[in-house]
Amino acid sequence: MTQMNRRILLASRPQGPISSDNFKLEAAPLAPLAEGQFRVRNLYLSIDPYMRGRMSDAKSYAQPQALGEVMLGGAVGEVVESKHRGFAAGDKVTGMFGWQEYAISDGAGVRKVDDSIVPLTAYLGVAGMPGVTAWYGLNKIIAPRAGQTVVVSAASGAVGSVVGQLAKLAGCRAVGIAGGERKCRYVVDELGFDGCVDYKGGNLYRDLKAATPDGVDGYFENVGGEVLDATLARMNPFGRIAVCGMIAGYDGQPVPMKQPSIILTMRLLVQGFIVTEHLDVWPEALSTLATLVAQKKLHYRESIVEGLEQAPEALMGLLQGKNFGKQIVKIA
Amino acid sequence: MTQMNRRILLASRPQGPISSDNFKLEAAPLAPLAEGQFRVRNLYLSIDPYMRGRMSDAKSYAQPQALGEVMLGGAVGEVVESKHRGFAAGDKVTGMFGWQEYAISDGAGVRKVDDSIVPLTAYLGVAGMPGVTAWYGLNKIIAPRAGQTVVVSAASGAVGSVVGQLAKLAGCRAVGIAGGERKCRYVVDELGFDGCVDYKGGNLYRDLKAATPDGVDGYFENVGGEVLDATLARMNPFGRIAVCGMIAGYDGQPVPMKQPSIILTMRLLVQGFIVTEHLDVWPEALSTLATLVAQKKLHYRESIVEGLEQAPEALMGLLQGKNFGKQIVKIA
Repeated sequence: MTQMNRRILLASRPQGPISSDNFKLEAAPLAPLAEGQFRVRNLYLSIDPYMRGRMSDAKSYAQPQALGEVMLGGAVGEVVESKHRGFAAGDKVTGMFGWQEYAISDGAGVRKVDDSIVPLTAYLGVAGMPGVTAWYGLNKIIAPRAGQTVVVSAASGAVGSVVGQLAKLAGCRAVGIAGGERKCRYVVDELGFDGCVDYKGGNLYRDLKAATPDGVDGYFENVGGEVLDATLARMNPFGRIAVCGMIAGYDGQPVPMKQPSIILTMRLLVQGFIVTEHLDVWPEALSTLATLVAQKKLHYRESIVEGLEQAPEALMGLLQGKNFGKQIVKIA
Repeated sequence: MTQMNRRILLASRPQGPISSDNFKLEAAPLAPLAEGQFRVRNLYLSIDPYMRGRMSDAKSYAQPQALGEVMLGGAVGEVVESKHRGFAAGDKVTGMFGWQEYAISDGAGVRKVDDSIVPLTAYLGVAGMPGVTAWYGLNKIIAPRAGQTVVVSAASGAVGSVVGQLAKLAGCRAVGIAGGERKCRYVVDELGFDGCVDYKGGNLYRDLKAATPDGVDGYFENVGGEVLDATLARMNPFGRIAVCGMIAGYDGQPVPMKQPSIILTMRLLVQGFIVTEHLDVWPEALSTLATLVAQKKLHYRESIVEGLEQAPEALMGLLQGKNFGKQIVKIA
């Protein structure tokens, strides 16, 4: 009997919010391996905000995902069959293996990972792309000095939680912005931030001002919209803003920045970045992050759902801010 | 008979657009010099957009100008009396001498200038603060490579005209944005830009797209508002925006940036700056600029009105975009 590979394709491009109609689950026979290839059985999929952008064909930093193809996405898995000299059955690996049970790879962009140091799922979060994203934006753009104040939005998320903890380790005051009292408690009580502002609390600017008595020197932007406007109004002269995400804009109309003149009056540096364009820093960042996790200096939380078929729902929830911690789908 | 000094004071802070009521012309006797001071007879005043910001007490990069004091501003003049070892009668000098006929200085921030190299008024424009502003934003923030496209707004103005000419000298395609056909013709025909878009022409984005077929790599922002929005939508990946001015916002409500998400999708660097905070580069910049003027490689235009009492009107006109070239008031 032919072994089958269940996979989720991009069926249509969303107009506005995504829905389950944009995806199609199907099963196809496993393809044979060519020389130089290996087969990965996916164990965990990573669900990330950038996926929404790839589903559109609007002008963006990345090529849109092709229609009718397997949804792109990072995963960790185990090599189950190999015709590649660098990878053997039993190797644990992480790479862009997509929303499917089995992937074929030639090794490009694939890293072997060691689950004796940190758990496998951590390589999708704190010790993977989200962690490196946090590390890059904080160290290479914000570059805070001890005693400065660093604010991060989506603070309970996979990236934000690492930003604030790294800022604390660097001697800064770390203040998060998150949605809801429960997430804010987690950010302060479990992650050790100095404060966290609930943007759903109805007094965003007032609460942020109270949490940042000395103003804001560095802002790690994951959200955009009114959260950006409020933080911009708290920036100190020569502040730095690392622009990593604009979730608020992904699902519809552009969201304006109300007072761009603050960039001038406060002589700010505002820098957008995509972490996959800075591969030179990954080895240093990944090694630092895995060490901090192993030393229990970097904490994280995961939101794991089971079953490939749950992936579309998990992405929808992520884009609506429903997840709590790094969103992962357990495949096997 | 006591010699008098005519001077213009800030009489009140403007609410919205400035008017002549915000100023007061008066005459006061010349004060005696103390040891270490010298007296300057102002010959030319510089009129600059930043003055509007100083007249307000809104939070900004600079302290507001005090009420009842002489209006702040740069000038060139001649030393007429000195108790300072570094300055002698007859020296031509430039400094923040204010809107008055005679100023007393202790030499702080004062430079001697040589009118045998370039005309005195050039030290208020192309070979002075506006020129250094252009030099800094272009070389230190935009840092363009030959072949790239640089756009500058307020292109016929004191700063913008230098930005585009320096970009051309660096091998770039230089495109200006200016208000009206006459200014645009000047920018192309006399300053040598590759193109100029008339933002009053009614087709700003379409015309800018046509003038920047390869997109925009560097943008020198003097204006804000819809000009910023249109240029943002033309930015290439890794583009740089030097934010030098936001005239559109000076006279009233904040003007939003419509699509800040482009900062992320195009991985832009957006940097606000104030040239007086980078004094370390002034000697290099001033020497380069004066040499280029003397070599006739850098062209400029001045709009000179006569009489101290014309200064308020000149500033109002500048803020409304009525001037053409560097705005100067001839005092004596």
